[in-house]
Amino acid sequence: MALKSFIEVGPDSHFPIQNLPFGIFKPEPTSPPRPGVAIGDYVLDLSTISVSGLFDGPFLSGSDCFLQPNLNKFLALGRPAWKEARATLQNLLSADEAKLRDNPSLREKSLVPMSKVEMLLPIAIGDYTDFFSSMHHARNCGIMFRGPENAINPNWFQLPIAYHGRSSSIVVSGTDIIRPRGQGHPSGNSPPYFGPSRKLDFELEMAAVVGPGNELGKPVDVNEAGDHIFGLVLMNDWSARDIQAWEYVPLGPFLGKSFGTTLSPWIVTLDALEPFACDAPKQDPQPLPYLAEKISKNYDISLEVQIKPAGQEDSCVVTRSNFNHLYWTVTQQLAHHTINGCNLRPGDLLGSGTISGPEPESYGCLLELTWNGQKSLSLNGTTRKFLEDGDEVVFSGCSKGDGYKVGFGTCSGKILPSP
Amino acid sequence: MALKSFIEVGPDSHFPIQNLPFGIFKPEPTSPPRPGVAIGDYVLDLSTISVSGLFDGPFLSGSDCFLQPNLNKFLALGRPAWKEARATLQNLLSADEAKLRDNPSLREKSLVPMSKVEMLLPIAIGDYTDFFSSMHHARNCGIMFRGPENAINPNWFQLPIAYHGRSSSIVVSGTDIIRPRGQGHPSGNSPPYFGPSRKLDFELEMAAVVGPGNELGKPVDVNEAGDHIFGLVLMNDWSARDIQAWEYVPLGPFLGKSFGTTLSPWIVTLDALEPFACDAPKQDPQPLPYLAEKISKNYDISLEVQIKPAGQEDSCVVTRSNFNHLYWTVTQQLAHHTINGCNLRPGDLLGSGTISGPEPESYGCLLELTWNGQKSLSLNGTTRKFLEDGDEVVFSGCSKGDGYKVGFGTCSGKILPSP
Repeated sequence: MALKSFIEVGPDSHFPIQNLPFGIFKPEPTSPPRPGVAIGDYVLDLSTISVSGLFDGPFLSGSDCFLQPNLNKFLALGRPAWKEARATLQNLLSADEAKLRDNPSLREKSLVPMSKVEMLLPIAIGDYTDFFSSMHHARNCGIMFRGPENAINPNWFQLPIAYHGRSSSIVVSGTDIIRPRGQGHPSGNSPPYFGPSRKLDFELEMAAVVGPGNELGKPVDVNEAGDHIFGLVLMNDWSARDIQAWEYVPLGPFLGKSFGTTLSPWIVTLDALEPFACDAPKQDPQPLPYLAEKISKNYDISLEVQIKPAGQEDSCVVTRSNFNHLYWTVTQQLAHHTINGCNLRPGDLLGSGTISGPEPESYGCLLELTWNGQKSLSLNGTTRKFLEDGDEVVFSGCSKGDGYKVGFGTCSGKILPSP
Repeated sequence: MALKSFIEVGPDSHFPIQNLPFGIFKPEPTSPPRPGVAIGDYVLDLSTISVSGLFDGPFLSGSDCFLQPNLNKFLALGRPAWKEARATLQNLLSADEAKLRDNPSLREKSLVPMSKVEMLLPIAIGDYTDFFSSMHHARNCGIMFRGPENAINPNWFQLPIAYHGRSSSIVVSGTDIIRPRGQGHPSGNSPPYFGPSRKLDFELEMAAVVGPGNELGKPVDVNEAGDHIFGLVLMNDWSARDIQAWEYVPLGPFLGKSFGTTLSPWIVTLDALEPFACDAPKQDPQPLPYLAEKISKNYDISLEVQIKPAGQEDSCVVTRSNFNHLYWTVTQQLAHHTINGCNLRPGDLLGSGTISGPEPESYGCLLELTWNGQKSLSLNGTTRKFLEDGDEVVFSGCSKGDGYKVGFGTCSGKILPSP
């Protein structure tokens, strides 16, 4: 018999008792930010639960980790504390447990309708790294820019390629994105183009949230890397393709990406995703020993991107992909990141890179979907090559269990014109 | 008549009353970190000066910015507060002013011998960006890796190329650097090399420390960019050339750099450097309007790198360069960084890139000095192509005034073997 909450949760909800993703919210516009978990259409206020003494296990009793404006302190505690929190909350919210269910005053104080809260970024992000781990995406970009012979650089199959991203411009779902201005390729002998980006794109990604970090100079073993990952979020790595194409040689993406990156507000824990673990793709050539995992695990998470075109009421699905298309696992990414001694800190973010599947309907960005603007995408009677001002892009993602879903909610942003 | 302090300061000191660089220090191993300025062989404890009510100007009286464990709060206040602090401190330390000079108890509490203090990182660094602004360095690297025809990519002359660096592994001068392990190019059909880097290098850089930031979506005008820069530090952007060469296509440097970056502890303010301002190099082609400055300013700062080879007592100068070799100014770097709307925050760091001059004796890294290991560098009877375990690299930098120096002290680090 499946675990059930005393709170009514519909079968299509992303947030049943099996999920319990963590976020940071404000119950009222003027109240201080605090941690919460999503349950059905409610947010459970963990600061209230904590003050009420209901986190009474060995790791969390007496801790002030749920009295913080971000989750970093909780993340630093590591998996035993996370498992204890999950067990405590699943018990507290279950249909059979009276403590919260039969305490109207505590229910009133701790359960806030999701429609009333403001969600904030769940973590203070020290460093944000973005990987490039979908082979289909790497191949498509390679074919477009270097031709089919050299589509994928040989290093790609030996290591999870990545670059450092910009932390300051990471925003929570629902934040508008201002179209960036910048330089693009000159045509002929003219100076470079300068103005609003003409190739504004989304990138369908997910990101891993780092829990306990590692000391500078002390790499993390790939078989222990899972203990350093708290969970996953949806991520839109907005990209200005014209700015990126002109600037990125030889040091990589910079202003083509750093104007904004959107995260979904709820971090779904690896513990909640465990039932949806699946085998990672076979890697050929075999990875070097420091990247060879005893168990190489991916997660079956269905992903979807919708665009609501400017001025329209209805949105339109533009792609469907899955997290399990990634070639490099998040544990390989983390181990690789630290192999040179680089230190990770709680709250660091590891983006997956654009998650494209093998079929054209599963490509994870407009660059691939329109083949760099060579063809148009039909949307509710209008068309797009790249994003226009007023367009809203909405990602969603979930794993489907037996009679329930473990979902991420949405990750959305609307394009505003350049200043 | 030049300004003089009641504290004896020799003519070769980097820290006369004309300088007054800001840092963070601990007077005793167990005391909490606090801000200070360097004066001769002493550190003036700004927390003590602040608590004594001696910051009595309009911007700083009542502020707790000098009761913090880093300078970020002071940096956020902006140039008027910085100028007020400088004027207050120059007055307090001057030979003619009795307030501190004739107060033995306050002197005792606030002036700590520099030899006794522990210096810490002066700022909490949200994001670290590294530019690539020396034309000589860009040309040398280009000739080595792409040949003389395509030495410098056309975009280089149109915009200050940069990449996002890793914040977590930035350390203060004196911290040992552990030789990174990682992958290098495969030879023939073998798998890639894996092991300790065989091409470990320093990069002679300086970095600008950001003061007040800008809001996401609101670029900073190039002619106002100077107001967002507090000062400069020396920076060693340690680089593993073999790791970098194999990983960097197409997304730029990652593990070849992220194992450690060393900063000098003292931030020399732009106000102290103003007497050493000089014209920036003429830029051809003319930069686009958003990068065209009314006054294009560089600074005459002599830079020197010494290596103390493993097991030896004496160090040896390996290069002499100057900050004024940079093609792109720090104000252009900052304006470019924000033109897409990217937000900067107080304490962000903008590295200059390796500062090479035109002559071989002024190249800013071993990659250039030994032409990627093709020739050896003589050091006190031994030779080097790249750094060996036990080598210590020491940067110094200063501007020479009439009878005094405005200097940065040193920025040093010793190589420890891979684990």
